[in-house]
Amino acid sequence: MMSKETNQSWGGRFNEPVDAFVARFTASVDFDKRLYKHDIMGSIAHAKMLAEVGVLTNIERDAIIEGLNQIQQEIEAGAFEWRVDLEDVHMNIEAKLTERIGVTGKKLHTGRSRNDQVATDIRLWLRDEITRIQSEVIRLQQGILDLAEREADTIMPGFTHLQTAQPVTFGHHLLAWFEMLSRDYERLVDCRKRVNRMPLGSAALAGTTYPIDRLVTCKLLDFEAVSGNSLDGVSDRDFAIEFCNVASLIMMHLSRFSEELVLWTSAQFRFIDLPDRFCTGSSIMPQKKNPDVPELIRGKTGRVYGDLMGLLTLMKGQPLAYNKDNQEDKEPLFDAVDTVADSLRAFADMVPAIQARRENMREAALRGFSTATDLADYLVRKGLPFRDCHEIVGHAVRYGVENNKDLAEMSLAELRQFSDKIDNDVFAVLTLEGSVNARNHLGGTAPTQVKQAIKRNKELLAKA
Amino acid sequence: MMSKETNQSWGGRFNEPVDAFVARFTASVDFDKRLYKHDIMGSIAHAKMLAEVGVLTNIERDAIIEGLNQIQQEIEAGAFEWRVDLEDVHMNIEAKLTERIGVTGKKLHTGRSRNDQVATDIRLWLRDEITRIQSEVIRLQQGILDLAEREADTIMPGFTHLQTAQPVTFGHHLLAWFEMLSRDYERLVDCRKRVNRMPLGSAALAGTTYPIDRLVTCKLLDFEAVSGNSLDGVSDRDFAIEFCNVASLIMMHLSRFSEELVLWTSAQFRFIDLPDRFCTGSSIMPQKKNPDVPELIRGKTGRVYGDLMGLLTLMKGQPLAYNKDNQEDKEPLFDAVDTVADSLRAFADMVPAIQARRENMREAALRGFSTATDLADYLVRKGLPFRDCHEIVGHAVRYGVENNKDLAEMSLAELRQFSDKIDNDVFAVLTLEGSVNARNHLGGTAPTQVKQAIKRNKELLAKA
Amino acid sequence: MMSKETNQSWGGRFNEPVDAFVARFTASVDFDKRLYKHDIMGSIAHAKMLAEVGVLTNIERDAIIEGLNQIQQEIEAGAFEWRVDLEDVHMNIEAKLTERIGVTGKKLHTGRSRNDQVATDIRLWLRDEITRIQSEVIRLQQGILDLAEREADTIMPGFTHLQTAQPVTFGHHLLAWFEMLSRDYERLVDCRKRVNRMPLGSAALAGTTYPIDRLVTCKLLDFEAVSGNSLDGVSDRDFAIEFCNVASLIMMHLSRFSEELVLWTSAQFRFIDLPDRFCTGSSIMPQKKNPDVPELIRGKTGRVYGDLMGLLTLMKGQPLAYNKDNQEDKEPLFDAVDTVADSLRAFADMVPAIQARRENMREAALRGFSTATDLADYLVRKGLPFRDCHEIVGHAVRYGVENNKDLAEMSLAELRQFSDKIDNDVFAVLTLEGSVNARNHLGGTAPTQVKQAIKRNKELLAKA
Amino acid sequence: MMSKETNQSWGGRFNEPVDAFVARFTASVDFDKRLYKHDIMGSIAHAKMLAEVGVLTNIERDAIIEGLNQIQQEIEAGAFEWRVDLEDVHMNIEAKLTERIGVTGKKLHTGRSRNDQVATDIRLWLRDEITRIQSEVIRLQQGILDLAEREADTIMPGFTHLQTAQPVTFGHHLLAWFEMLSRDYERLVDCRKRVNRMPLGSAALAGTTYPIDRLVTCKLLDFEAVSGNSLDGVSDRDFAIEFCNVASLIMMHLSRFSEELVLWTSAQFRFIDLPDRFCTGSSIMPQKKNPDVPELIRGKTGRVYGDLMGLLTLMKGQPLAYNKDNQEDKEPLFDAVDTVADSLRAFADMVPAIQARRENMREAALRGFSTATDLADYLVRKGLPFRDCHEIVGHAVRYGVENNKDLAEMSLAELRQFSDKIDNDVFAVLTLEGSVNARNHLGGTAPTQVKQAIKRNKELLAKA
Repeated sequence: MMSKETNQSWGGRFNEPVDAFVARFTASVDFDKRLYKHDIMGSIAHAKMLAEVGVLTNIERDAIIEGLNQIQQEIEAGAFEWRVDLEDVHMNIEAKLTERIGVTGKKLHTGRSRNDQVATDIRLWLRDEITRIQSEVIRLQQGILDLAEREADTIMPGFTHLQTAQPVTFGHHLLAWFEMLSRDYERLVDCRKRVNRMPLGSAALAGTTYPIDRLVTCKLLDFEAVSGNSLDGVSDRDFAIEFCNVASLIMMHLSRFSEELVLWTSAQFRFIDLPDRFCTGSSIMPQKKNPDVPELIRGKTGRVYGDLMGLLTLMKGQPLAYNKDNQEDKEPLFDAVDTVADSLRAFADMVPAIQARRENMREAALRGFSTATDLADYLVRKGLPFRDCHEIVGHAVRYGVENNKDLAEMSLAELRQFSDKIDNDVFAVLTLEGSVNARNHLGGTAPTQVKQAIKRNKELLAKA
Repeated sequence: MMSKETNQSWGGRFNEPVDAFVARFTASVDFDKRLYKHDIMGSIAHAKMLAEVGVLTNIERDAIIEGLNQIQQEIEAGAFEWRVDLEDVHMNIEAKLTERIGVTGKKLHTGRSRNDQVATDIRLWLRDEITRIQSEVIRLQQGILDLAEREADTIMPGFTHLQTAQPVTFGHHLLAWFEMLSRDYERLVDCRKRVNRMPLGSAALAGTTYPIDRLVTCKLLDFEAVSGNSLDGVSDRDFAIEFCNVASLIMMHLSRFSEELVLWTSAQFRFIDLPDRFCTGSSIMPQKKNPDVPELIRGKTGRVYGDLMGLLTLMKGQPLAYNKDNQEDKEPLFDAVDTVADSLRAFADMVPAIQARRENMREAALRGFSTATDLADYLVRKGLPFRDCHEIVGHAVRYGVENNKDLAEMSLAELRQFSDKIDNDVFAVLTLEGSVNARNHLGGTAPTQVKQAIKRNKELLAKA
Repeated sequence: MMSKETNQSWGGRFNEPVDAFVARFTASVDFDKRLYKHDIMGSIAHAKMLAEVGVLTNIERDAIIEGLNQIQQEIEAGAFEWRVDLEDVHMNIEAKLTERIGVTGKKLHTGRSRNDQVATDIRLWLRDEITRIQSEVIRLQQGILDLAEREADTIMPGFTHLQTAQPVTFGHHLLAWFEMLSRDYERLVDCRKRVNRMPLGSAALAGTTYPIDRLVTCKLLDFEAVSGNSLDGVSDRDFAIEFCNVASLIMMHLSRFSEELVLWTSAQFRFIDLPDRFCTGSSIMPQKKNPDVPELIRGKTGRVYGDLMGLLTLMKGQPLAYNKDNQEDKEPLFDAVDTVADSLRAFADMVPAIQARRENMREAALRGFSTATDLADYLVRKGLPFRDCHEIVGHAVRYGVENNKDLAEMSLAELRQFSDKIDNDVFAVLTLEGSVNARNHLGGTAPTQVKQAIKRNKELLAKA
Repeated sequence: MMSKETNQSWGGRFNEPVDAFVARFTASVDFDKRLYKHDIMGSIAHAKMLAEVGVLTNIERDAIIEGLNQIQQEIEAGAFEWRVDLEDVHMNIEAKLTERIGVTGKKLHTGRSRNDQVATDIRLWLRDEITRIQSEVIRLQQGILDLAEREADTIMPGFTHLQTAQPVTFGHHLLAWFEMLSRDYERLVDCRKRVNRMPLGSAALAGTTYPIDRLVTCKLLDFEAVSGNSLDGVSDRDFAIEFCNVASLIMMHLSRFSEELVLWTSAQFRFIDLPDRFCTGSSIMPQKKNPDVPELIRGKTGRVYGDLMGLLTLMKGQPLAYNKDNQEDKEPLFDAVDTVADSLRAFADMVPAIQARRENMREAALRGFSTATDLADYLVRKGLPFRDCHEIVGHAVRYGVENNKDLAEMSLAELRQFSDKIDNDVFAVLTLEGSVNARNHLGGTAPTQVKQAIKRNKELLAKA
């Protein structure tokens, strides 16, 4: 008979036990034990189905369910001893079950394999995590809308190329963040529907000879559909890659928000303050108050990109069906889930605490010829083609740079050097309020548009 | 007036012309001229809208449309002279328009900016490319179904860990490929809906002071919706990243198919033949017939992963709104589109020509103890727990390895060494047909299941 | 005074303690405590230098050193309590030091900052890890040479495009692996010299006002040089990226070896056997013996690529000098180090246990027209231009494929159909031994060349 | 005889010509023709060697050399017709040679294969490109040193976390850039030595039966060494990956410089001016002067990262020896070379033209409590432990923030609120000059140190 040193689940064919380092190197229980709850959930559904089709008796089923429930309690109480020599979460739980309820425990694995079992577990787990992430996205979006509402009339410089471009409202700027997160939310929904399909029943790769009823298990586990092909069912990791891509886009967006928070809290911008509780100091420079949270999140972008790249590499060129390579799917996925959930949480906590320094924003908007486009548009309304107006204003700006005067600071005579179409009514056009109010269309920066967009988006969130 | 050396569109403010190397280095016309058709399409819609809201007269509108149509013909006839000093496709076309129809041409740019124009152009272009890619996916899927139908009863070894696992049908194996492509198709649909939103009207970053009606343009261009925020509208490149991720998954799948084709055409497998027209030879080894097409596609996987990683890096940490960095969005996107479209096309051409070498597949399935699981399941039906049966069969296999006999080649006496539950009825279980037919449930490898799946999938394709 | 809740090292300027989640989110002690030994090593050298330049008294220095040594023992005994509220390994150790030796402990941080401290610690740590990895590379190379020596005369098919190309010796094939690892070793050496430079003395970013002597510390810590600029010193993470690239190349090579081991152990190739102790089985298929170790290592390639990509993304676009983003440098680096060290170890253990199945290799080499090039070369020696010979042999191969005969199996009459230059002496050319012996030049597959290469390489290793 | 439709180099064995799309899809001549010069260089050396060992006559050798030289002239004159049906640069040139000099042309390929030929060509080409890139690095470094010399005494705020940290000199900041490039240069040198090894003589995979002398060719082509194993020789692409990593690090550094130039030219910083010739404007906003060159280079970082990731993916899991996948090595490598060379050139042109706005830098340095560390160090010198001084100054900063006063603006009485160790001599410490001059050690920001570093580095460059 098999020696104690070899794994109970597959030792029969083997002449020598697994090398001790290899056992540790190939084991996954250190990280996949995290799936215990979903592994037990899947096993209970499998046992119920097996009883329904007559492979298990109801008594066997009940013994299994009770045994698994006890194991779950034990794990959650921290009393479960995980064994590396049992390789993974699945064999640890099954071995304990058999230890507890005897030979019936050995029947649980009838009609399935670890290949379909692990694929099912990860999907069940990821499905829940996506739901949790979705709720953090919404909480952050809510915070953005509230802040945008407070700052719907606050004027700041809008930038392109980090150069002053045109005045915008701070509320409008914040709504750009909202839009990015809305797409992230949509992608989470789309991804979740492909996560929520059941590979269970694929068995090792070809299905099973037992009279299983996959639709029963599917319903018990609240999956939307069963996978259509057993070879694909055990080897498909698309859902993990797709999730990591969605996560990468979320982190990319957060990296952009972070970059702006870092800029805005700098001594050069001073557009906002972050409360002390979101910052840390320096061990050597006593005056420092660093925007650590956005910096760290910007840095964490790379690790999620890395997780995505790792999974894409993992699957490249793998022949069907399951290969051991696939064990490497879990750690990057776990890391991406944790990173994106924590980063969203930090942002959702922090955004409502952002304090706008409105005078600084306004002062910055007054510099940099931010209303030059308004002057060009003014000239168009006086009948000149846009391209010519652009050039006229360009000359005025060159004059302003050389004489250190913004457009609104020039006299009418000075302005008329560049075009005699300019008249006294030009000065209303050159104010910040005139500029933002004039961009009054769907998606534009006028405060009335911003307020409408906030209202629209609040209604959307209420429905999510 | 402006000197000839500087660009007509923004020279007024500048004291010196752009450095010659810088002009070439920052110009994009060499690659973005590819967008000409969609640029003109967008401009025509913009002109129609401007006329509808009274910014252009109908006469001006018609002159613009006629001018643009002529330019399109000129480009398509190869008679258009692209100028690097005009930077990009947009200024090349606009400059030519003005040259042709005079001052009215300069009015076309009213109420928009290159920032929203280019974002609109790429989306229009990508929308069409996605449609083209979708049709190649379907053509490939059709080819797979046809081949699977021919090979629904062909038995081959199913592999896990590239070791013989259980017999499957070749048709079943091919349907695994089909499933992967079905998910790719779904993702293309999901991605396309986010591509198909209109940023036009965002202008430079804040919207415009002209009384534009974005819903008119949206309808004319057949977009599904308008973007909700102008700052986001000009700087959002999510759609390009999302497409590259979808493309990466497609290439990953093709790399898996390729790996299998390479294996199957090797002298060791000899499972299939590829016609000579899909292979190439060697300049030095006269006997070589190399599966170049799948190898090359497997290799091309990396470049699409690289395109994805490039775009993710590009957007990391960018503050709002448009930055020049974004000009780097196009080449990776173009490359990903071309690579995935060509690779799908090559596969769609090649798959119908795959010739199965059925005897070799069958012979391989007979080796490697492929029906060991069937024997274990047989013992379960005789009343033993699965885990014990697994071990019994493990011992039988060890005996077989040592004596160089497959299970079906052992005598009843030999088999009964391992369990006295084994009887004469075991031999039916150990046949290949017995094995595949027994996996007769949704997603399983039994030929009847395979044929049902083909029928189901053909109906799906018919509706796509 | 500062409340207990805020960090002792920088609290003076702050009005409220750090948010509890933020404290946990931004803390690094959970992973950077791994650097404790090198942190203490760096601190001791710093204290010695401070005493040498008169900033500390010798008594203070000795108290610090003794305190640190005790802390190290405590950590190694598992008795040290790590506190998340103290953020990182540095503050944990310093706080404990002050707790233990009083006010003198507070003087240790004189003239340095955590910015240069952490950069120094990682370099000290990585330097040691590189040394460890180098020794695993050499151990693996030694195993390869020993195996190559045993198999210097074993003939197998050489493949290009996974199609039979020309006969090679198994020893020759293994030496290709050796070459890859030799380049890896060189790169480790090159990388290590750039790791081995000392940023200590850069302080926060600008250097320090204390009269430090960096050359003293440099010598104490056995660094090769000091960094030349303080701003660069605290923000340079090139060495981590360069290491991850070296590690990626190592993993790429191991993935290639792994792919071959997986192929060679398959039922289709059967070129080698791996002992049971390097394989695992299946929970459902009793006959399975899977090459888990190479598969898993092939899969781990992706995670190291991901680590590299994560670090490259991390550093992209960071302005000088230190930013909090950089805290994210450690986990990917740790992961790459662990993965590459474990993977090399597994290979170094496994390679000596590879058992060649020589008859199978030989039989495979006899198939697939592997000596076709030899026939072409034979015709060249009879006076025909190479390109014509290539074509003649191509026709012979086509005939062979159609008639299912390898070249050596054809009669002279059959061969002469394609060229009357062919004579009886052709058959010596068409043997496997004839083929491999004929490639007798530096780098060629002839056994004499292989043996010389082994000898050369053994001498190299002896010197490493 | 072979039909015209099939490729002359390997058609004999084939029954049908290559599919037209496949021919285009698998051809590489569109991009690899770029290697023509190095292909001809390699062929000439190969012909000379063949003559030296007696495989070619001197007359044949001379005919080949003359023919190849003519072809090179033809290519450089734009008169060469590249044919896609001839697949690649090698077959195009060889076919033309045979067309021109007759049957002797067919003898050139004796003893080599396209597998070793292409590997040799790329190395020859890349070797030259690295040399060119090295000279651009040095030109940029020279420009940095010159600018640093002009600005050695210019004081600006040094940043960590983009928050004002301590005063530094602009010259010192620029030397940080210099250091990064010095490491890049070192890595180019290290990479080049591994590029500069000759695979020629590996033939298809196993070496050749001709009596070649690889050392002769090696010397003719000025390679440093020959590759030691033929299987490795044809399939090694480490050098391309290693180059792309070196290039990625260069681009990462340039992205950091770019980020700073973008910040410094913003209206909020105004630390520098870039001349108009390195900037471009906006088609809609007449006042815009955008730092396009640094933005674009920052954006190009992603494409080089993508090239690296593409090549790593390409090689993952490839069995020996050459596979068609490897054809995909060239485009990413070409792209990385072009991008890094152009980006360095743009920076080398631009850096000397940077105009520091010294008053703005100084004014910024005066804000943000930049001398707080100096105050803490002052208190240390008065006998307090550093950690306590840090906290005292922290309180002073908090007072300053609340009362809107920098440290140097407080009265002695105000300062003594926080410690009675503070005396009148404190004000010298709080000046910018006092602060930078005090950091007077190797690598520190004191102008004397900066000037010494410039001198040292100029001497280094002179030797490069």
